[in-house]
Amino acid sequence: MPDSKNNVPKVKRVTMAHGSGGRLSRELIQDLVLKHFGHPTLHRLEDSALFEVDGVRLAFTTDSYVIQPLFFPGGDIGKLAVTGTVNDLLCVGARPLYLSLALILEEGFSLDKLERILDSASREAGEVGVEVICGDTKVVQKGKGDGIFVNTSGVGVVPADLDISPRRIEMGDAILVSGPIGDHGISILSQRESFGFASQLRSDCASLVSLVQGVLDPSLGVRCMRDPTRGGVGTILAEIALDRQMGIQVDEEQIPVRDEVRGACELLGLDFLYIANEGKMVLFVAKGREQEVLSILRKDPLGRESTIIGQVVAEHPGMAVLRTKIGGSRIIDLPTGELLPRIC
Amino acid sequence: MPDSKNNVPKVKRVTMAHGSGGRLSRELIQDLVLKHFGHPTLHRLEDSALFEVDGVRLAFTTDSYVIQPLFFPGGDIGKLAVTGTVNDLLCVGARPLYLSLALILEEGFSLDKLERILDSASREAGEVGVEVICGDTKVVQKGKGDGIFVNTSGVGVVPADLDISPRRIEMGDAILVSGPIGDHGISILSQRESFGFASQLRSDCASLVSLVQGVLDPSLGVRCMRDPTRGGVGTILAEIALDRQMGIQVDEEQIPVRDEVRGACELLGLDFLYIANEGKMVLFVAKGREQEVLSILRKDPLGRESTIIGQVVAEHPGMAVLRTKIGGSRIIDLPTGELLPRIC
Repeated sequence: MPDSKNNVPKVKRVTMAHGSGGRLSRELIQDLVLKHFGHPTLHRLEDSALFEVDGVRLAFTTDSYVIQPLFFPGGDIGKLAVTGTVNDLLCVGARPLYLSLALILEEGFSLDKLERILDSASREAGEVGVEVICGDTKVVQKGKGDGIFVNTSGVGVVPADLDISPRRIEMGDAILVSGPIGDHGISILSQRESFGFASQLRSDCASLVSLVQGVLDPSLGVRCMRDPTRGGVGTILAEIALDRQMGIQVDEEQIPVRDEVRGACELLGLDFLYIANEGKMVLFVAKGREQEVLSILRKDPLGRESTIIGQVVAEHPGMAVLRTKIGGSRIIDLPTGELLPRIC
Repeated sequence: MPDSKNNVPKVKRVTMAHGSGGRLSRELIQDLVLKHFGHPTLHRLEDSALFEVDGVRLAFTTDSYVIQPLFFPGGDIGKLAVTGTVNDLLCVGARPLYLSLALILEEGFSLDKLERILDSASREAGEVGVEVICGDTKVVQKGKGDGIFVNTSGVGVVPADLDISPRRIEMGDAILVSGPIGDHGISILSQRESFGFASQLRSDCASLVSLVQGVLDPSLGVRCMRDPTRGGVGTILAEIALDRQMGIQVDEEQIPVRDEVRGACELLGLDFLYIANEGKMVLFVAKGREQEVLSILRKDPLGRESTIIGQVVAEHPGMAVLRTKIGGSRIIDLPTGELLPRIC
């Protein structure tokens, strides 16, 4: 949950909060990683990096998956490793082409489970038309891993005329989300803790290829897309407001959240804004074009519940603000502590 | 060490030998991974995968590094994560361009060590002119990892006229190695077990960009290059003989091995042919061109001790054979068990 900015202890060791996707993750990356690696593309910290070779524009991204449990309602680590990396490529407007698949296996891990995971990754890749073309397998001793960690990196091709990036966001842009938020995080939590309250809930884990490709035509005015995984929609809104020094305002009443997710969050004192998603997209769309984009998104099976949740405003630059149902407002800050560890 | 082919137990769980780079690694990949992923490029199991986008030829590779210890004479996991992936790109004739960097950190890992590792990776990338342009950081609970695991994937560009691949190997090709073998493996082993016998030995961990680029001109007749890391030179020779159903013959007397490595191997009952290298290249060169390639390799600081170690022969197709110093010969088989775990 968000905490006061001055309360962050100066740790000398890695903590779980460094992996939360929130403020400490950001500090770790900015203080340590970016200090050593100077490429401006890396410094943009977008979901995928863009580069050009002989006039061809390509996107490149990487993600390690350390989720627990490995199998969950709606997916498993294999499916997730494909959808997560595919969605990161989609965020910059790329057409996903190829994936790498690198496994770190713990001694003693069941080969049957491994087979189920590979089968699931393979099905998902086949469905969205990406090909796994390289891989690696390492084994660590029992007690030095956690069953299986998966890394997928991905390469895609970006059309010449397309520029989808937080740098393009402008005042007045509408903010859309492609469906109910928090399903993945609460589904994992429910599975992990054997809570009954969300027994019908499934992770939203899905590749958004068709959803995204439907709105890529530059004339539609989609300026930025972000994949609200670890850290949720709240972290993305806070980051963009901060990085672009723009004001963001969203309406609680407009944000789609399933009853199970809302109930679980109330019970556990969690904020659905920060709960992970694995099959949703947040879109920033030029003012006046949002209704058209919304109607296209809603035609896609994975976007039927798309909603306009807010806009980019002139007030409070650098800050994302939630207008609550009861008419108040509160700051959407970067989360400081550990929300739900190992959620992706 | 090589074992009889029919002695491999049918395990249902992951064993350390699955990560050895030898026979069980190969079985795991062929029985499980290739069954699910059908792309012919993946099935080639080369060091990097080649693909083409709008007429531009690119190479893509991935490797996870789980080495212990993290810091060793001659390098550390950060340098290794750059050199290993760069060398994999070089094997297919690619000019390495971009890397991804994905960290899996264990809770409690020292941020100072992390900084040293990132610094080392950054220096190595800078020296060879590759750029890290995307990354990921995950944290797992204490006891669910081992300090740090690093994955780097890499993308490079391949000249239009170049075809470097085991498929191009022909009868009579000379086999070269770019220097003494086994330094990395024995150096790690010595560090890990605090053996004194190899105290002066350093890992050969190095990016071979200039060495390889010196011999890429197609007129020089370099047909195949392989990076003899996990599993060593022996595994590569055995694999190529098997996959191409060609005979390979190498002369023990010609294979460069440092005294410290030879001594350690004799003491521990290891075979230097299977010991890992991290800065060597095995090259297959068209008959008659080997002296010219050799003299170019020897001009490079990392190739001064390059040697011709054998050739592709008509005899014993499918088998690699070592002619020993005392005039005998023995089969170079795929190693079955675990050699040195977590060597890269």
